[in-house]
Amino acid sequence: MAGGKGKALVAHGGGPTAVLNASLVGIVEQCRSQAQINSLYGALNGAAGLLDEHFVDLFAESQETWDGIALSPGSALGTSRKSLSDGDFSRMLETLRRHDIRHVFLSGGNGTMEMALKLSGVCRDAAYEASVIGVPKTIDNDLYGTDHTPGFASAARFFIHGLRFVGADNRALPGVTIVEVLGRNAGWLAASTLLARQEPDDAPHLVYLPERRLPFSKLATDVESVYRKLGRVVVAVCEGQLDENGEPFGADTRTTSKVPLALNLAHVLSMKLTRSLGVNARSEKPGLLGRSFAALASPVDLEEARRCGAAAVQFALRGETGKMVTLERLAGDNYESIVGLAPIEEVAGRERLFPEEWMPHDASGDSPEFRAWLRPLIGPIQQLGRLARIPVPE
Amino acid sequence: MAGGKGKALVAHGGGPTAVLNASLVGIVEQCRSQAQINSLYGALNGAAGLLDEHFVDLFAESQETWDGIALSPGSALGTSRKSLSDGDFSRMLETLRRHDIRHVFLSGGNGTMEMALKLSGVCRDAAYEASVIGVPKTIDNDLYGTDHTPGFASAARFFIHGLRFVGADNRALPGVTIVEVLGRNAGWLAASTLLARQEPDDAPHLVYLPERRLPFSKLATDVESVYRKLGRVVVAVCEGQLDENGEPFGADTRTTSKVPLALNLAHVLSMKLTRSLGVNARSEKPGLLGRSFAALASPVDLEEARRCGAAAVQFALRGETGKMVTLERLAGDNYESIVGLAPIEEVAGRERLFPEEWMPHDASGDSPEFRAWLRPLIGPIQQLGRLARIPVPE
Repeated sequence: MAGGKGKALVAHGGGPTAVLNASLVGIVEQCRSQAQINSLYGALNGAAGLLDEHFVDLFAESQETWDGIALSPGSALGTSRKSLSDGDFSRMLETLRRHDIRHVFLSGGNGTMEMALKLSGVCRDAAYEASVIGVPKTIDNDLYGTDHTPGFASAARFFIHGLRFVGADNRALPGVTIVEVLGRNAGWLAASTLLARQEPDDAPHLVYLPERRLPFSKLATDVESVYRKLGRVVVAVCEGQLDENGEPFGADTRTTSKVPLALNLAHVLSMKLTRSLGVNARSEKPGLLGRSFAALASPVDLEEARRCGAAAVQFALRGETGKMVTLERLAGDNYESIVGLAPIEEVAGRERLFPEEWMPHDASGDSPEFRAWLRPLIGPIQQLGRLARIPVPE
Repeated sequence: MAGGKGKALVAHGGGPTAVLNASLVGIVEQCRSQAQINSLYGALNGAAGLLDEHFVDLFAESQETWDGIALSPGSALGTSRKSLSDGDFSRMLETLRRHDIRHVFLSGGNGTMEMALKLSGVCRDAAYEASVIGVPKTIDNDLYGTDHTPGFASAARFFIHGLRFVGADNRALPGVTIVEVLGRNAGWLAASTLLARQEPDDAPHLVYLPERRLPFSKLATDVESVYRKLGRVVVAVCEGQLDENGEPFGADTRTTSKVPLALNLAHVLSMKLTRSLGVNARSEKPGLLGRSFAALASPVDLEEARRCGAAAVQFALRGETGKMVTLERLAGDNYESIVGLAPIEEVAGRERLFPEEWMPHDASGDSPEFRAWLRPLIGPIQQLGRLARIPVPE
């Protein structure tokens, strides 16, 4: 009875963002306004909550609570990176059936979309009528089928400001620093830091995208070249950057999630640069601040995240299932987006890397097309002042 | 002829802050409005500019430029950490004499105040009439003679938000993370992160101040205890934290400034915790973002920084020399500060550590007196929402 009266459920998957809760609030508000939905369950801590029936009543929360949550980072429900077995999906189906849950909203990235795909398949195979709708969420912007993903623009806005401010500091007290940007395989966030530059000699002087492997010798040559010219260097590099052998430069890759990721990449690069160039280099790693820094959430991102949540409910009530909500950019001089739907099998488990045609020619290069694409998504960026430095009269 | 007509000069020393330029603008505006000052020189790159006569004409810059610079981090003049010899001070005196510079404003921390002390002494000994006034600046808040220092409250506001946002992320996707806070010997910024907590189980769960040495075994026990209770831990630790042997836990202490400082302390602690507790720990190191993040500059800090700059000019014209501008907090329910003066020998080269009487009893403790002291300085802090998590009806 997809499209009919019933209970709805929402769960989160993967790493939180600054606007994941905005999508949740969009879902809640839309569910409340729809007579066909008589209850909205929140599954705590992602798939685990759905498996263990850890459900909270989202219609029982106050408006004041939702107003606070809409602007809060993290996930009000909790999330997880749990791997799921076939047996888990059978159990989920039984749980949905037992609670008469007919609408399932899963917010997350490509891993969560795999879960949505399988769950919708299990429901279909069992002839259990339910709408399973994916709500896109990832700072990495690596989902197919959508112009961009909620969460990305806010993380970009944080890193653009971070690089611009560190650049001002570096200009005042010159040195070499490597700033580690979030992003494992896709360089969208690293590329975003191009927008930190106001003047040609502004940071970041070198930007590396993980789509291209980076021999350390190339990094050293690039840094030395900028250092000779400016006497200072700010580098933006992704946490997932690999060297020419596909290795993370000898960095510490203890596992904190399913797949190993270097935990100290920027520091290791700064040590190696210090050794090879004889110039002291340091590193900054904002890390989790990059995906949670709600004080710099993009207003466009917040609004779109909420709208994606609301749209998921509307699509579910139309009987859609196995689809992910998308954002489509309309043609025209002024930025405008509308929501759409993509078949989830075109999204699940795939990574949309930074487009080859937008890739800067080298690490000191620019990407005007990408900057023009990103600009309307990120909201205002603080402009910095600079002295003309007029010499005193003789 | 201190107090008479003449040229003025301003130079910066030490690490930049988010509001150092606001003090510069205060100096510029006040100098412009004073008929006795016919020219204002800016020395580029700190003491080096004064020695090499790299001067720019600050009266020649446009108002638009100053409006932009007032809110920009870094140092519009450039700064340095240069060590100075006796010969350097003799050269500086000759330079002042040659240019007929009668007012010298030096913005910086305790190192810069040492320079101001020596320079005022050299002028006095040579019977060269000049006013040398120190303008306080340091995110570390470790200057004596003043209630607090411009720069500190803005850095505190950044780290409070950082810990609050990382805390929300950590609550959503539990784990162990160490956030490295700026501060070598003084724990003012680390202590500030106590204001990130809204609820008793909020981050930071453990806060360490470098005034107390920290055996690694104590850290491990503390982390384990919080982890057992909450299943997640966020730790705030200073970059300058030392272990019971006065060593930085085996961290990398290459020199990037005059004195060695660990460059990867939080990461090293996270590795050691992972090894000793068998729980994966990670680390975040906002680093230079902490002293430059102008988007979160405290409005009070910006205003006070500017006022300190303006006051320095007024004090100079009254014939004061060898003094540092201070901020005095007035008694009363509503925060109010006035500027004052402290003899620079009471400030130079000394570090005001975090007060023993405000020290939390342990790493999970609180300091209500300190929080009350800090609250009016930092401006608004974003409040986060949280679900009541009401179970669904049976």
